[in-house]
Amino acid sequence: MNFTSKLLEEAVQSLSTLPGIGKKTALRLALHLVQDKNGKSKRLANSLLDMDENVKHCKTCHSISDDDLCGICQSKSRQKNVICVVESVRDLMAIEDTSCFHGVYHILGGLISPIDGIGPSDLSIDQLIERVDAGDVQELIMAISPTLEGETTTYYITKKIAHTNVRVSTIARGVSFGGELEYADELTLSRSISARIPYDISTQV
Amino acid sequence: MNFTSKLLEEAVQSLSTLPGIGKKTALRLALHLVQDKNGKSKRLANSLLDMDENVKHCKTCHSISDDDLCGICQSKSRQKNVICVVESVRDLMAIEDTSCFHGVYHILGGLISPIDGIGPSDLSIDQLIERVDAGDVQELIMAISPTLEGETTTYYITKKIAHTNVRVSTIARGVSFGGELEYADELTLSRSISARIPYDISTQV
Repeated sequence: MNFTSKLLEEAVQSLSTLPGIGKKTALRLALHLVQDKNGKSKRLANSLLDMDENVKHCKTCHSISDDDLCGICQSKSRQKNVICVVESVRDLMAIEDTSCFHGVYHILGGLISPIDGIGPSDLSIDQLIERVDAGDVQELIMAISPTLEGETTTYYITKKIAHTNVRVSTIARGVSFGGELEYADELTLSRSISARIPYDISTQV
Repeated sequence: MNFTSKLLEEAVQSLSTLPGIGKKTALRLALHLVQDKNGKSKRLANSLLDMDENVKHCKTCHSISDDDLCGICQSKSRQKNVICVVESVRDLMAIEDTSCFHGVYHILGGLISPIDGIGPSDLSIDQLIERVDAGDVQELIMAISPTLEGETTTYYITKKIAHTNVRVSTIARGVSFGGELEYADELTLSRSISARIPYDISTQV
Protein backbone atom coordinates (compact mmCIF):
# COMPACT_ATOMS: atom_id res chain seq x y z
CA MET A 1 0.00 0.00 0.00
CA ASN A 2 1.16 3.49 -0.87
CA PHE A 3 0.32 5.84 1.97
CA THR A 4 0.28 9.59 1.47
CA SER A 5 0.88 10.10 5.20
CA LYS A 6 3.23 8.41 7.68
CA LEU A 7 0.79 9.12 10.52
CA LEU A 8 -1.99 7.36 8.67
CA GLU A 9 0.33 4.46 7.91
CA GLU A 10 1.24 4.07 11.58
CA ALA A 11 -2.42 4.12 12.64
CA VAL A 12 -3.22 1.47 10.02
CA GLN A 13 -0.24 -0.56 11.22
CA SER A 14 -1.42 -0.50 14.86
CA LEU A 15 -5.04 -1.22 13.97
CA SER A 16 -4.07 -4.20 11.85
CA THR A 17 -2.38 -5.86 14.84
CA LEU A 18 -5.85 -6.42 16.31
CA PRO A 19 -7.34 -9.90 15.86
CA GLY A 20 -9.52 -10.25 12.77
CA ILE A 21 -8.53 -6.83 11.41
CA GLY A 22 -6.56 -7.02 8.17
CA LYS A 23 -4.75 -4.25 6.32
CA LYS A 24 -7.81 -3.23 4.26
CA THR A 25 -10.16 -3.09 7.23
CA ALA A 26 -7.54 -1.19 9.24
CA LEU A 27 -7.29 1.37 6.44
CA ARG A 28 -11.07 1.74 6.34
CA LEU A 29 -11.16 2.29 10.12
CA ALA A 30 -8.25 4.75 10.08
CA LEU A 31 -9.78 6.80 7.25
CA HIS A 32 -13.11 6.78 9.07
CA LEU A 33 -11.39 8.13 12.19
CA VAL A 34 -9.34 10.73 10.34
CA GLN A 35 -12.44 12.05 8.59
CA ASP A 36 -14.56 12.16 11.72
CA LYS A 37 -15.10 15.68 12.99
CA ASN A 38 -16.59 14.80 16.38
CA GLY A 39 -13.41 13.72 18.16
CA LYS A 40 -14.20 10.02 17.86
CA SER A 41 -10.51 9.24 17.38
CA LYS A 42 -9.54 11.10 20.56
CA ARG A 43 -12.32 9.48 22.57
CA LEU A 44 -11.31 6.01 21.40
CA ALA A 45 -7.62 6.65 22.09
CA ASN A 46 -8.34 8.05 25.55
CA SER A 47 -10.61 5.17 26.52
CA LEU A 48 -7.93 2.69 25.41
CA LEU A 49 -5.23 4.53 27.37
CA ASP A 50 -7.51 4.76 30.39
CA MET A 51 -8.25 1.05 30.23
CA ASP A 52 -4.57 0.21 29.70
CA GLU A 53 -3.45 2.26 32.70
CA ASN A 54 -6.21 1.74 35.23
CA VAL A 55 -7.81 -1.63 34.68
CA LYS A 56 -7.06 -4.22 37.37
CA HIS A 57 -7.67 -7.88 37.93
CA CYS A 58 -9.92 -8.78 40.83
CA LYS A 59 -7.77 -10.27 43.61
CA THR A 60 -10.29 -12.98 44.33
CA CYS A 61 -11.80 -14.12 41.04
CA HIS A 62 -9.19 -12.71 38.58
CA SER A 63 -11.88 -11.02 36.52
CA ILE A 64 -11.23 -7.63 34.90
CA SER A 65 -12.19 -4.95 37.38
CA ASP A 66 -11.84 -1.24 38.18
CA ASP A 67 -11.00 -1.95 41.82
CA ASP A 68 -9.01 -4.53 43.74
CA LEU A 69 -12.21 -6.52 44.18
CA CYS A 70 -14.73 -6.76 41.34
CA GLY A 71 -18.40 -5.85 41.72
CA ILE A 72 -19.47 -9.48 41.88
CA CYS A 73 -16.98 -10.42 44.62
CA GLN A 74 -17.92 -7.23 46.55
CA SER A 75 -21.65 -7.79 46.23
CA LYS A 76 -23.45 -8.90 49.41
CA SER A 77 -26.26 -10.52 47.49
CA ARG A 78 -24.07 -13.14 45.81
CA GLN A 79 -23.63 -16.60 47.27
CA LYS A 80 -19.94 -16.81 48.11
CA ASN A 81 -19.96 -20.58 48.64
CA VAL A 82 -20.77 -21.49 45.02
CA ILE A 83 -17.94 -20.76 42.60
CA CYS A 84 -18.44 -20.97 38.86
CA VAL A 85 -15.09 -21.73 37.22
CA VAL A 86 -14.72 -20.26 33.72
CA GLU A 87 -11.92 -19.93 31.21
CA SER A 88 -12.21 -16.21 30.43
CA VAL A 89 -13.97 -12.95 31.20
CA ARG A 90 -16.06 -13.44 28.07
CA ASP A 91 -17.50 -16.66 29.49
CA LEU A 92 -18.25 -14.87 32.77
CA MET A 93 -20.10 -12.15 30.86
CA ALA A 94 -22.07 -14.71 28.87
CA ILE A 95 -23.23 -16.36 32.10
CA GLU A 96 -23.96 -12.99 33.75
CA ASP A 97 -26.12 -12.06 30.75
CA THR A 98 -28.44 -14.96 31.59
CA SER A 99 -29.01 -13.40 35.10
CA CYS A 100 -29.65 -16.87 36.50
CA PHE A 101 -26.43 -17.52 38.42
CA HIS A 102 -26.14 -15.92 41.85
CA GLY A 103 -22.83 -17.30 43.03
CA VAL A 104 -19.33 -15.98 42.38
CA TYR A 105 -16.76 -16.76 39.70
CA HIS A 106 -13.18 -17.84 39.27
CA ILE A 107 -11.42 -17.06 36.00
CA LEU A 108 -8.68 -19.49 35.06
CA GLY A 109 -7.23 -17.34 32.29
CA GLY A 110 -6.95 -20.34 29.95
CA LEU A 111 -7.02 -24.12 30.00
CA ILE A 112 -4.31 -26.72 30.61
CA SER A 113 -2.84 -27.51 27.21
CA PRO A 114 0.54 -29.28 27.19
CA ILE A 115 0.73 -29.01 23.40
CA ASP A 116 0.70 -25.19 23.69
CA GLY A 117 3.02 -25.28 26.70
CA ILE A 118 0.29 -24.14 29.11
CA GLY A 119 0.56 -25.92 32.44
CA PRO A 120 -1.41 -25.49 35.69
CA SER A 121 1.10 -22.90 36.94
CA ASP A 122 0.30 -20.59 34.01
CA LEU A 123 -3.33 -20.43 35.11
CA SER A 124 -4.96 -19.25 38.31
CA ILE A 125 -5.58 -22.80 39.53
CA ASP A 126 -3.46 -22.46 42.68
CA GLN A 127 -5.47 -19.39 43.66
CA LEU A 128 -8.69 -21.35 43.14
CA ILE A 129 -7.43 -24.09 45.42
CA GLU A 130 -6.46 -21.47 48.01
CA ARG A 131 -10.02 -20.12 47.82
CA VAL A 132 -11.40 -23.62 48.32
CA ASP A 133 -9.02 -24.35 51.21
CA ALA A 134 -9.63 -21.01 52.89
CA GLY A 135 -13.37 -20.61 52.84
CA ASP A 136 -16.58 -22.49 53.24
CA VAL A 137 -16.98 -23.29 49.54
CA GLN A 138 -19.67 -25.89 48.91
CA GLU A 139 -19.66 -26.31 45.15
CA LEU A 140 -17.49 -25.66 42.11
CA ILE A 141 -19.45 -25.40 38.86
CA MET A 142 -17.08 -26.11 36.00
CA ALA A 143 -18.41 -24.03 33.07
CA ILE A 144 -15.62 -25.02 30.72
CA SER A 145 -15.57 -26.05 27.06
CA PRO A 146 -15.94 -29.84 26.63
CA THR A 147 -12.66 -30.08 24.70
CA LEU A 148 -9.63 -32.19 25.53
CA GLU A 149 -8.07 -29.17 27.27
CA GLY A 150 -11.29 -28.43 29.15
CA GLU A 151 -11.67 -32.01 30.34
CA THR A 152 -8.01 -32.11 31.42
CA THR A 153 -8.42 -28.90 33.39
CA THR A 154 -11.61 -30.11 35.08
CA TYR A 155 -9.93 -33.44 35.95
CA TYR A 156 -6.84 -31.68 37.36
CA ILE A 157 -8.86 -29.32 39.54
CA THR A 158 -11.12 -32.13 40.78
CA LYS A 159 -8.07 -34.21 41.75
CA LYS A 160 -6.49 -31.24 43.53
CA ILE A 161 -9.52 -30.63 45.75
CA ALA A 162 -10.34 -34.29 46.32
CA HIS A 163 -9.29 -33.94 49.98
CA THR A 164 -12.11 -31.45 50.65
CA ASN A 165 -15.87 -31.92 50.79
CA VAL A 166 -16.47 -29.54 47.93
CA ARG A 167 -18.90 -30.83 45.29
CA VAL A 168 -17.75 -30.47 41.68
CA SER A 169 -20.35 -30.24 38.93
CA THR A 170 -20.17 -29.42 35.23
CA ILE A 171 -22.78 -27.51 33.27
CA ALA A 172 -25.30 -29.69 31.41
CA ARG A 173 -24.47 -30.72 27.86
CA GLY A 174 -27.09 -31.78 25.36
CA VAL A 175 -29.17 -30.76 22.40
CA SER A 176 -29.70 -26.99 22.63
CA PHE A 177 -33.16 -25.49 23.08
CA GLY A 178 -34.62 -24.79 19.67
CA GLY A 179 -32.06 -27.13 18.13
CA GLU A 180 -33.35 -29.83 15.83
CA LEU A 181 -32.41 -33.39 16.66
CA GLU A 182 -31.38 -34.34 13.13
CA TYR A 183 -28.77 -31.55 13.06
CA ALA A 184 -27.23 -32.32 16.46
CA ASP A 185 -23.82 -33.98 16.21
CA GLU A 186 -23.58 -37.65 17.11
CA LEU A 187 -21.55 -37.18 20.30
CA THR A 188 -23.96 -34.58 21.70
CA LEU A 189 -26.96 -36.70 20.79
CA SER A 190 -25.59 -39.95 22.21
CA ARG A 191 -24.47 -38.19 25.43
CA SER A 192 -27.84 -36.48 25.76
CA ILE A 193 -29.53 -39.87 25.63
CA SER A 194 -27.19 -41.54 28.13
CA ALA A 195 -27.45 -38.49 30.44
CA ARG A 196 -31.25 -38.26 30.11
CA ILE A 197 -33.15 -36.57 32.93
CA PRO A 198 -36.48 -37.56 34.50
CA TYR A 199 -39.35 -35.58 33.03
CA ASP A 200 -40.72 -33.34 35.77
CA ILE A 201 -44.15 -31.99 34.96
CA SER A 202 -43.96 -29.30 37.67
CA THR A 203 -41.08 -27.45 35.94
CA GLN A 204 -42.92 -27.15 32.62
CA VAL A 205 -44.27 -23.72 31.72
CA MET B 1 -23.96 -7.09 28.28
CA ASN B 2 -22.89 -7.20 31.90
CA PHE B 3 -19.44 -5.67 32.25
CA THR B 4 -17.31 -6.28 35.29
CA SER B 5 -15.41 -3.05 34.65
CA LYS B 6 -16.55 0.43 33.63
CA LEU B 7 -13.22 1.04 31.88
CA LEU B 8 -13.68 -2.07 29.78
CA GLU B 9 -17.25 -1.01 29.01
CA GLU B 10 -16.12 2.42 27.81
CA ALA B 11 -13.43 0.92 25.59
CA VAL B 12 -16.00 -1.49 24.08
CA GLN B 13 -18.39 1.43 23.61
CA SER B 14 -15.79 3.49 21.73
CA LEU B 15 -14.61 0.55 19.63
CA SER B 16 -18.17 -0.31 18.61
CA THR B 17 -18.64 3.17 17.10
CA LEU B 18 -16.22 2.12 14.33
CA PRO B 19 -17.80 1.03 11.04
CA GLY B 20 -18.34 -2.72 10.78
CA ILE B 21 -17.46 -3.33 14.44
CA GLY B 22 -20.40 -4.58 16.49
CA LYS B 23 -20.62 -5.02 20.26
CA LYS B 24 -19.29 -8.59 20.23
CA THR B 25 -16.30 -7.79 18.02
CA ALA B 26 -15.59 -4.69 20.10
CA LEU B 27 -15.55 -6.83 23.25
CA ARG B 28 -13.17 -9.31 21.61
CA LEU B 29 -10.83 -6.47 20.59
CA ALA B 30 -10.98 -4.80 24.02
CA LEU B 31 -10.26 -8.07 25.85
CA HIS B 32 -7.42 -8.76 23.45
CA LEU B 33 -5.95 -5.33 24.23
CA VAL B 34 -6.45 -5.61 27.97
CA GLN B 35 -4.73 -8.99 28.05
CA ASP B 36 -1.82 -7.92 25.88
CA LYS B 37 1.40 -7.48 27.85
CA ASN B 38 3.45 -5.74 25.16
CA GLY B 39 1.86 -2.29 25.32
CA LYS B 40 -0.20 -2.82 22.15
CA SER B 41 -3.06 -0.82 23.62
CA LYS B 42 -0.81 2.16 24.40
CA ARG B 43 0.81 2.02 20.97
CA LEU B 44 -2.57 1.95 19.24
CA ALA B 45 -3.94 4.79 21.38
CA ASN B 46 -0.86 6.94 20.81
CA SER B 47 -0.86 6.41 17.05
CA LEU B 48 -4.56 7.37 16.93
CA LEU B 49 -3.94 10.50 19.03
CA ASP B 50 -0.93 11.37 16.90
CA MET B 51 -2.93 10.99 13.71
CA ASP B 52 -5.85 12.96 15.15
CA GLU B 53 -3.66 15.87 16.20
CA ASN B 54 -1.09 16.10 13.45
CA VAL B 55 -2.58 14.86 10.22
CA LYS B 56 -3.25 17.55 7.61
CA HIS B 57 -4.94 17.80 4.26
CA CYS B 58 -2.73 18.69 1.30
CA LYS B 59 -3.49 22.26 0.26
CA THR B 60 -3.40 21.39 -3.42
CA CYS B 61 -4.95 17.94 -3.85
CA HIS B 62 -6.80 17.61 -0.49
CA SER B 63 -5.25 14.22 0.18
CA ILE B 64 -4.29 13.19 3.71
CA SER B 65 -0.76 14.37 4.37
CA ASP B 66 1.79 15.00 7.11
CA ASP B 67 2.75 18.40 5.64
CA ASP B 68 0.93 21.28 3.99
CA LEU B 69 1.74 19.71 0.63
CA CYS B 70 1.59 15.94 0.18
CA GLY B 71 4.47 13.87 -1.16
CA ILE B 72 2.86 13.52 -4.59
CA CYS B 73 2.25 17.27 -5.04
CA GLN B 74 5.79 18.02 -3.79
CA SER B 75 7.43 15.46 -6.05
CA LYS B 76 9.36 16.86 -9.00
CA SER B 77 8.98 13.67 -11.01
CA ARG B 78 5.18 13.88 -11.27
CA GLN B 79 3.48 15.49 -14.25
CA LYS B 80 1.65 18.47 -12.79
CA ASN B 81 -0.47 19.05 -15.90
CA VAL B 82 -2.43 15.78 -15.68
CA ILE B 83 -4.83 15.65 -12.75
CA CYS B 84 -6.59 12.45 -11.78
CA VAL B 85 -9.84 13.34 -10.01
CA VAL B 86 -10.91 10.77 -7.38
CA GLU B 87 -13.59 10.56 -4.74
CA SER B 88 -11.46 9.58 -1.74
CA VAL B 89 -7.98 8.88 -0.44
CA ARG B 90 -8.70 5.16 -0.74
CA ASP B 91 -9.19 5.54 -4.50
CA LEU B 92 -5.93 7.51 -4.72
CA MET B 93 -4.11 4.73 -2.86
CA ALA B 94 -5.63 2.07 -5.15
CA ILE B 95 -4.35 3.94 -8.22
CA GLU B 96 -0.94 4.58 -6.61
CA ASP B 97 -0.65 0.86 -5.91
CA THR B 98 -0.70 0.21 -9.67
CA SER B 99 2.40 2.49 -10.06
CA CYS B 100 1.27 3.36 -13.60
CA PHE B 101 0.00 6.91 -13.14
CA HIS B 102 2.61 9.66 -13.03
CA GLY B 103 0.41 12.74 -12.80
CA VAL B 104 -1.10 14.37 -9.70
CA TYR B 105 -4.44 13.94 -7.97
CA HIS B 106 -7.41 15.91 -6.78
CA ILE B 107 -9.60 14.44 -4.06
CA LEU B 108 -13.21 15.58 -4.14
CA GLY B 109 -14.09 14.23 -0.70
CA GLY B 110 -17.35 12.74 -2.01
CA LEU B 111 -19.71 12.93 -4.96
CA ILE B 112 -22.61 15.26 -5.76
CA SER B 113 -25.71 13.58 -4.33
CA PRO B 114 -28.79 15.79 -3.93
CA ILE B 115 -30.66 12.94 -2.20
CA ASP B 116 -28.05 12.94 0.60
CA GLY B 117 -27.91 16.76 0.61
CA ILE B 118 -24.38 16.85 -0.83
CA GLY B 119 -23.95 19.70 -3.30
CA PRO B 120 -20.88 20.95 -5.19
CA SER B 121 -20.05 23.37 -2.36
CA ASP B 122 -19.62 20.46 0.07
CA LEU B 123 -16.87 19.01 -2.10
CA SER B 124 -13.53 20.43 -3.22
CA ILE B 125 -14.82 21.16 -6.74
CA ASP B 126 -14.21 24.92 -6.54
CA GLN B 127 -10.60 24.25 -5.59
CA LEU B 128 -10.26 21.92 -8.57
CA ILE B 129 -11.57 24.62 -10.89
CA GLU B 130 -9.14 27.10 -9.32
CA ARG B 131 -6.31 24.67 -10.08
CA VAL B 132 -7.49 24.37 -13.66
CA ASP B 133 -7.85 28.14 -14.06
CA ALA B 134 -4.51 28.90 -12.42
CA GLY B 135 -2.12 26.47 -14.07
CA ASP B 136 -1.29 24.84 -17.32
CA VAL B 137 -3.45 21.76 -16.78
CA GLN B 138 -3.88 19.72 -19.94
CA GLU B 139 -6.08 16.84 -18.86
CA LEU B 140 -8.46 15.82 -16.11
CA ILE B 141 -8.82 12.05 -15.74
CA MET B 142 -12.12 11.37 -13.96
CA ALA B 143 -11.51 8.15 -11.97
CA ILE B 144 -14.95 8.14 -10.41
CA SER B 145 -17.54 5.38 -9.81
CA PRO B 146 -19.96 5.02 -12.75
CA THR B 147 -22.98 5.59 -10.50
CA LEU B 148 -25.65 8.26 -10.84
CA GLU B 149 -23.72 10.43 -8.38
CA GLY B 150 -20.45 9.82 -10.18
CA GLU B 151 -21.90 10.69 -13.58
CA THR B 152 -23.52 13.84 -12.14
CA THR B 153 -20.22 14.94 -10.61
CA THR B 154 -18.29 14.32 -13.84
CA TYR B 155 -20.93 16.22 -15.83
CA TYR B 156 -20.88 19.16 -13.41
CA ILE B 157 -17.09 19.46 -13.46
CA THR B 158 -16.94 19.14 -17.26
CA LYS B 159 -19.53 21.91 -17.61
CA LYS B 160 -17.64 24.14 -15.19
CA ILE B 161 -14.36 23.93 -17.12
CA ALA B 162 -15.96 24.04 -20.58
CA HIS B 163 -14.45 27.52 -21.12
CA THR B 164 -10.91 26.14 -20.92
CA ASN B 165 -8.96 23.90 -23.29
CA VAL B 166 -8.55 21.17 -20.72
CA ARG B 167 -9.34 17.68 -21.99
CA VAL B 168 -11.60 15.57 -19.77
CA SER B 169 -11.37 11.79 -19.92
CA THR B 170 -12.85 9.01 -17.83
CA ILE B 171 -11.13 5.74 -16.99
CA ALA B 172 -12.01 2.85 -19.28
CA ARG B 173 -14.94 0.64 -18.34
CA GLY B 174 -15.38 -2.88 -19.61
CA VAL B 175 -15.00 -6.54 -18.80
CA SER B 176 -12.20 -6.89 -16.27
CA PHE B 177 -9.01 -8.80 -17.08
CA GLY B 178 -9.45 -12.40 -16.04
CA GLY B 179 -13.21 -11.88 -15.94
CA GLU B 180 -15.33 -14.36 -17.86
CA LEU B 181 -17.74 -12.95 -20.41
CA GLU B 182 -20.70 -15.00 -19.27
CA TYR B 183 -20.48 -13.57 -15.74
CA ALA B 184 -20.14 -9.91 -16.78
CA ASP B 185 -23.30 -7.88 -16.17
CA GLU B 186 -25.33 -6.83 -19.21
CA LEU B 187 -24.57 -3.11 -18.96
CA THR B 188 -20.82 -3.64 -18.75
CA LEU B 189 -20.90 -6.13 -21.60
CA SER B 190 -23.05 -3.98 -23.92
CA ARG B 191 -20.93 -0.89 -23.16
CA SER B 192 -17.72 -2.81 -23.74
CA ILE B 193 -18.98 -3.80 -27.19
CA SER B 194 -20.12 -0.31 -28.17
CA ALA B 195 -16.88 1.18 -26.83
CA ARG B 196 -14.70 -1.46 -28.49
CA ILE B 197 -11.08 -0.53 -29.24
CA PRO B 198 -8.99 -1.31 -32.33
CA TYR B 199 -6.78 -4.37 -31.77
CA ASP B 200 -3.17 -3.20 -31.77
CA ILE B 201 -0.72 -6.03 -32.25
CA SER B 202 2.26 -3.94 -31.09
CA THR B 203 0.88 -3.57 -27.51
CA GLN B 204 0.49 -7.32 -27.01
CA VAL B 205 3.04 -9.00 -24.77
